[in-house]
Amino acid sequence: MITENKKFRYDQIANQLEDSILNDILKVGEKLPSVRLLSKQQHVSPSTIFKAYYQLEAKGLIEARPKSGYYVRFRHAERVAPAVVSATQPNAKAIDTSEIIKELEELRNSESILKLSSAVPSPKLLPIARLNKSIGEAVRTEKNFLLKYTHPQGNPELRRVIAQQLLNWGGNFRAEDLVITAGCMEALNISLMILTQPSDVIAIDELTYFSIHQAVEILGLKAVSIPVTSTGLDIPFLKKAIEQFPIKAGLFVTNFHNPTGVCIPDIQKKELVELMTAKQIPIIEDDIYGELYFGKNRPSTCKFYDTEGWVLYCSSLSKTIAPGYRIGYCQPGRFLEQFAHQKRILSLSTSSLPQAALLNFFQKGRYDFHLRKLRTALHTQALRYSQCILQYFPVGIYFSVPEGGFNFWIEFPKEFDSYELFKAAKDQQIGIAPGQIFSVESNYKNYIRLSFAEPFTEEIEEGIKQLGTLAEKQLALSNYSKEF
Amino acid sequence: MITENKKFRYDQIANQLEDSILNDILKVGEKLPSVRLLSKQQHVSPSTIFKAYYQLEAKGLIEARPKSGYYVRFRHAERVAPAVVSATQPNAKAIDTSEIIKELEELRNSESILKLSSAVPSPKLLPIARLNKSIGEAVRTEKNFLLKYTHPQGNPELRRVIAQQLLNWGGNFRAEDLVITAGCMEALNISLMILTQPSDVIAIDELTYFSIHQAVEILGLKAVSIPVTSTGLDIPFLKKAIEQFPIKAGLFVTNFHNPTGVCIPDIQKKELVELMTAKQIPIIEDDIYGELYFGKNRPSTCKFYDTEGWVLYCSSLSKTIAPGYRIGYCQPGRFLEQFAHQKRILSLSTSSLPQAALLNFFQKGRYDFHLRKLRTALHTQALRYSQCILQYFPVGIYFSVPEGGFNFWIEFPKEFDSYELFKAAKDQQIGIAPGQIFSVESNYKNYIRLSFAEPFTEEIEEGIKQLGTLAEKQLALSNYSKEF
Repeated sequence: MITENKKFRYDQIANQLEDSILNDILKVGEKLPSVRLLSKQQHVSPSTIFKAYYQLEAKGLIEARPKSGYYVRFRHAERVAPAVVSATQPNAKAIDTSEIIKELEELRNSESILKLSSAVPSPKLLPIARLNKSIGEAVRTEKNFLLKYTHPQGNPELRRVIAQQLLNWGGNFRAEDLVITAGCMEALNISLMILTQPSDVIAIDELTYFSIHQAVEILGLKAVSIPVTSTGLDIPFLKKAIEQFPIKAGLFVTNFHNPTGVCIPDIQKKELVELMTAKQIPIIEDDIYGELYFGKNRPSTCKFYDTEGWVLYCSSLSKTIAPGYRIGYCQPGRFLEQFAHQKRILSLSTSSLPQAALLNFFQKGRYDFHLRKLRTALHTQALRYSQCILQYFPVGIYFSVPEGGFNFWIEFPKEFDSYELFKAAKDQQIGIAPGQIFSVESNYKNYIRLSFAEPFTEEIEEGIKQLGTLAEKQLALSNYSKEF
Repeated sequence: MITENKKFRYDQIANQLEDSILNDILKVGEKLPSVRLLSKQQHVSPSTIFKAYYQLEAKGLIEARPKSGYYVRFRHAERVAPAVVSATQPNAKAIDTSEIIKELEELRNSESILKLSSAVPSPKLLPIARLNKSIGEAVRTEKNFLLKYTHPQGNPELRRVIAQQLLNWGGNFRAEDLVITAGCMEALNISLMILTQPSDVIAIDELTYFSIHQAVEILGLKAVSIPVTSTGLDIPFLKKAIEQFPIKAGLFVTNFHNPTGVCIPDIQKKELVELMTAKQIPIIEDDIYGELYFGKNRPSTCKFYDTEGWVLYCSSLSKTIAPGYRIGYCQPGRFLEQFAHQKRILSLSTSSLPQAALLNFFQKGRYDFHLRKLRTALHTQALRYSQCILQYFPVGIYFSVPEGGFNFWIEFPKEFDSYELFKAAKDQQIGIAPGQIFSVESNYKNYIRLSFAEPFTEEIEEGIKQLGTLAEKQLALSNYSKEF
């Protein structure tokens, strides 16, 4: 929609381009005209074009690719109207994804598999020696205290250093405001437990980490799927859903969303919080990937815009430093007391030992240094992997390089079945995640999530090449069957 | 009830005495006639009297006190008929115990308080140096593996050594049959989650660990309280309850029950399993205290008698070696798949680091040695504390020395209010647990749980003496107010 009296020329240009993109005149993955060309065409200075492109980039519609130019970012087909899906109703599912998820999880424990399937940092990117030293120091310092239960909300000193960490995005909390949990998953589960009753309706990302869908299912909840597109969360859609259903909570991955890599623009986060606060609907914010940004600035959080405590901010140290330690945390806003109570009843407190080890690591001032190294490594991996995918994958696929996190979300032509590719790849000892496990309705079967969490090596290159060949074969086969 | 044609003289004597006890002719805490005296009276050999006493002891009706003789054990007033109590109905509660529980938990984190209130082993009884060495060794051996997620069911090697441990009571399981959890509480919670829906009815011990009541409450369940008496679990009462209500599961602490110290006789465990198996009702068995027996043999478990997989056996390493590590486990019988699934969704897996440390400790063969030392220490403490209580506490109190675990369950005269004693004791830096927090209906306000988990010292003696004085004062005051 273009309002009439735009003041600035770059606004007009941006709006025209936006229309072209939304009307599929410029298709996903296609290159935009170069800045020089467009400035000539439109008789404006290159800086005006740059401003227009920045605006579109901020909206998540286009992306800059290094040394190449601007491209239209992927987005998903829009849903027509909100609908409640009960994961426990078998007819809500096109296929049973739980078996696929099991197969995928078995890959995790295999040593020989090429792990393009796991959205956790490779041990090769983690400061193992330094962390092990921290374990030793913590044991020497804390002695018998490690054997005692920690405070039900977690080690107070660890909470304090985590509160310091939240200053990165302007989070201003005291240690008492936080609860340490067994990873982010426990934080999400506890949030759902305290906010909902079975058969309640919640709003969640249409595409999301499969364990979130499973948590929703096991609690007997019903879900309205809110589309996540390249422009972020579809807030008008959410508004419609709220009008239509008694939504008890929203659960959203706000930064470098798994599997799509989408980062909800900060302006949208504000809008989301305002909408939900007005309706007094809590937001469960999952920000596990937020610290893994490749750009200059960390994206913000919903919690940052939360003036009345309706956001339960959940995150963890699993994606940045120690997946196996299972240390997560939550700032539950106005639900602090209920959250802490539920946590205490569930497991009394989180394990003392990994908390003490991570606290020591923080106290030695190594965490920020490690994060900087990790971000650079992941950014480099993202670029190397993407070059490789562009080189070896068949034509007709789309993906964009995310601005943080671990994952490419790769679109294949409609007829493609990524579970077939998953099986063929597994036979060749290559692990990928098929797209259908990320949505309850098992749509997105023509997508795969390919993770770049492992450092780029010749082995990886060879794996991506094999994957490309397998995909090409499958596409040729499905084209063949279409023709006859 | 006495059947007519008893073959043996000692059976007859035992039955006569049982009648005297059940009819309150011999009252709780009273001494039985000496073996010599009774053998003269009844014209039988002393060994016949010993056999009769053994029989009563096995039934939990009497107990031998070192160098003193046999005494009638405490038992609780019997309930008339089963009734469902919904913990969420405020009128089901005489008083709100949650505030008392909070106060009690605050004591845990205080360094200055004399801890007669906590049912966890004192760090002074734990092999801290050896365990810390195990942490170091585990870190050196496992290196980067500790950073990875462990198997959703937990470290396979740790599961194997725990399976070996279960051989102690004849448990015959494979590593694959076990799931490692964040302490026993998570195991109990997961069991309840997979077996029940909100507003389902379950059967639980009338008196039990307050966090179990809270878990039941938070899951929206209703409970039928089954009396725990000195003779064990009231199985006829449970039968009546099953006839009357659609009971979905039973949750029972089977050995050295918290707070009463009662050990369900093995024969009753068998009966319980047979009853529940016939009705296809799962038993959630909490056996965290089972390894802490003072006698020659470890008591058995319900799981031992479970031929069809209806018992979910839950336990932990929190009461024997490392409370703060939060490592528990479950053998969920026929519910293995659901249990493992629920655990994975709740927190993916249990923390790798404490699992690896405890595994190393087991592998070095130190656990059994430690357990033997711990049992001896606790037994000695139980006897020293009990002498001290007998010396300093006012007349009119009853308690028995348990055969395992950490706790004395001390009965005061009816009018006594143990919360008043709790507050007065806290002012003098002494921690005890008031009886009302262990039952949903907040009965048992004239009981306290006094734990002997700390090694006996002069400070402890002084504390018990002060406690005795405070109790005496309170009793005098309530007698005074009764008189006027």
